[in-house]
Amino acid sequence: MVEKISVGLLGLGTVGSGVVQIIDQHQDKLMHQVGCEVKVRKILVSDIHKKRDVYLNGTRLTNDPSEVLNDPEIDVVIEVMGGVETTREYILQALRNKKHVVTANKDLMALYGSELLQTAVENQCDLFYEASVAGGIPILRSLVEGLASDRITKMMGIVNGTTNYILTKMSQEGRNYEEVLQEAKDLGYAEADPTSDVEGLDAARKIAILGTLGFSMHIDLDDVSVEGISHVSKEDLEYGDQLGYTMKLIGLANRTDDKVEISVQPTLVTHSHPLAAVHNEFNAVYVYGAAVGETMFYGPGAGKLPTATAVVSDLVEVVKNMRLGVNGNSAVIPQFEKNLKSPEEVLAKYFLRIHAKDQPGTFASLTSLFSEQDVSLEKILQLPLEEGKIAEIIIVTHNATKKNFENILIKLNDLDVVVEVKSSYRVEGDGNR
Amino acid sequence: MVEKISVGLLGLGTVGSGVVQIIDQHQDKLMHQVGCEVKVRKILVSDIHKKRDVYLNGTRLTNDPSEVLNDPEIDVVIEVMGGVETTREYILQALRNKKHVVTANKDLMALYGSELLQTAVENQCDLFYEASVAGGIPILRSLVEGLASDRITKMMGIVNGTTNYILTKMSQEGRNYEEVLQEAKDLGYAEADPTSDVEGLDAARKIAILGTLGFSMHIDLDDVSVEGISHVSKEDLEYGDQLGYTMKLIGLANRTDDKVEISVQPTLVTHSHPLAAVHNEFNAVYVYGAAVGETMFYGPGAGKLPTATAVVSDLVEVVKNMRLGVNGNSAVIPQFEKNLKSPEEVLAKYFLRIHAKDQPGTFASLTSLFSEQDVSLEKILQLPLEEGKIAEIIIVTHNATKKNFENILIKLNDLDVVVEVKSSYRVEGDGNR
Repeated sequence: MVEKISVGLLGLGTVGSGVVQIIDQHQDKLMHQVGCEVKVRKILVSDIHKKRDVYLNGTRLTNDPSEVLNDPEIDVVIEVMGGVETTREYILQALRNKKHVVTANKDLMALYGSELLQTAVENQCDLFYEASVAGGIPILRSLVEGLASDRITKMMGIVNGTTNYILTKMSQEGRNYEEVLQEAKDLGYAEADPTSDVEGLDAARKIAILGTLGFSMHIDLDDVSVEGISHVSKEDLEYGDQLGYTMKLIGLANRTDDKVEISVQPTLVTHSHPLAAVHNEFNAVYVYGAAVGETMFYGPGAGKLPTATAVVSDLVEVVKNMRLGVNGNSAVIPQFEKNLKSPEEVLAKYFLRIHAKDQPGTFASLTSLFSEQDVSLEKILQLPLEEGKIAEIIIVTHNATKKNFENILIKLNDLDVVVEVKSSYRVEGDGNR
Repeated sequence: MVEKISVGLLGLGTVGSGVVQIIDQHQDKLMHQVGCEVKVRKILVSDIHKKRDVYLNGTRLTNDPSEVLNDPEIDVVIEVMGGVETTREYILQALRNKKHVVTANKDLMALYGSELLQTAVENQCDLFYEASVAGGIPILRSLVEGLASDRITKMMGIVNGTTNYILTKMSQEGRNYEEVLQEAKDLGYAEADPTSDVEGLDAARKIAILGTLGFSMHIDLDDVSVEGISHVSKEDLEYGDQLGYTMKLIGLANRTDDKVEISVQPTLVTHSHPLAAVHNEFNAVYVYGAAVGETMFYGPGAGKLPTATAVVSDLVEVVKNMRLGVNGNSAVIPQFEKNLKSPEEVLAKYFLRIHAKDQPGTFASLTSLFSEQDVSLEKILQLPLEEGKIAEIIIVTHNATKKNFENILIKLNDLDVVVEVKSSYRVEGDGNR
């Protein structure tokens, strides 16, 4: 039986400091849970002389990665340094040296998860990454364990705090995207270059990880169709609200028979859906299982202590497994062949907003285009924009294939009566699971 | 290494049939997760000749409990028969015969959990009971594992579907308690005798289980102060709504320093709080951890397949532990001394609705009573009820001790200006954690 666990940390930024702090402050509780002492032995940093805010309690700082990766005393490597290529090398080396790895790195896991997990299993090591998706929410463990005996058919996640903050403010205060984005930058909720968040790339990495785990099939980042929120207008939110929907950036993974769809897009979610009540920078992942039905996991998506807590939870699992001698469980490796839905197979409701000529026959032209594409309408809202000249027309369809709806979008531009196609969004939350 | 797992089932009602169905239909997935065959060998039923809806696949029915409890071939006993005293005997016998136990029985766990867990650990057996609280939500496992490195300071649960359904309908449709209760009975959402649900007893058992696990101290059912919803009026909901609150029956467990409060009561929850968006028969448990901050777990609280899914998840854990040879982990036994808060130590905001004489001096009398008890006011709403005669007065306090607020309730009756104290409720969701 293992008597003492030594941890090597890669990185001592915000999350790293949180990890050190939690391990230090919860030593008693940790001891009680895993039955032995857990100590941070070495930390890889770029500057060993920099003044640190965290109490290091004798832990040695080093700027030589091999001091951590090749130290035979170190049992577990915790990676909180970020980055992808170098980090991948370090983690591979740690695993080959039979060190278990805990990482909070979604970019790395979305790109190289498959290779890293394979290497971990080959070396009978654990590789855990709970903190990489929705930091404060134990969603990965819940997918693997809690829902173990169910078949997951749908996941929808609000997995990016910055965009949820922006959409919440736009919606609650009737403000424009640019204005709220600027405020979010000023407040530190958005990065100076917010592209990865607002264009949906961050969310795409997380839904790729969720899809891989929930469906047990290897989802590549390239499999995710991605649309961000930078084109979302306050008018879209207002009309959406009138028709009963709240705008959210949703990472979506669904499975019908054995075909899957993985995407990220601004989505109008029915007011009564639990995701619609997830405000500000909070994250939530909604999971539909064939047996269990609807569940949702809500919490902070980022932040020093939430993320560090998830990292330490993973560490606790590693240590338990070490004491049991059962690391490197191969069940974490995807088991099923990936089979993506074509646009003809993706079914959804859509919201469409257009400006059209306010004249007799407009609606007839529109409806004949829709029925030509075999798409029927669920809700229609028409308002005069310029009296007798231009009308604002909003349509919510019944379920349609993505292909047919895209055909409609293309052909709308050829219609004489259409002045401008303003926007279109996917609609979720009433019925489709 | 274990090669094949045999399960004995106690009971074949709704949940039992679901368990049999899931084990049968997910044999491949189970095999993949635990690495060996899992088979239901025998089922204890009261009538072995009754026609069953479920495909039994060769499983033997028996009406002799010892056929299950003493069968040396049976590794795991799943208890889904309900009841308390006899069931306790059966489970004790199973554990003493070194059989692991999975139960969905909240009554049993709330009353005898301590004894049963102790017996399990003494016999190196697992005793899991995920399905006993909020069936479709893996909350117990999340408390034990996901939040392992955190210190939980508050839990608030909507853990009774019947009362949440009733309150949702009352609130959304402006209807009376009695009317909605009758409808719930007609629809099968409420039992013919709904006492255990509507008087908060069912919720009390669940919050006792959550408190025990989340705080690692043994909470007895008698430690829970309980108030049901049968006296809640539609006026209370309407005025609550006007002031920004939604009425929910909340099971509450909080901890300040090392003192805890465990209670169940109808509670006005701030609209923006995630619990306020939990509608109809859904359950949710909100957990506040010192490090992770706010998290919430949402899902179905009952139902055949959600409950059966939770049971099978526990079974999967048992089997994994068997294959690892690590059953009977003593970490599930409460570690800390219980220390309940006195009414002087319980701090909360309160909502109070009274009918008072509509005359000069009324408010002065009221406010002097409040300030005498050291309670300050956050919100006040006054409306004429009978012009010039009676006023409807609604007050929301700032934080006050339970003791002081109870003093106010008593002394209000002595005030000349007070016609009737209509209702009072705890308020949660803005600020207190």
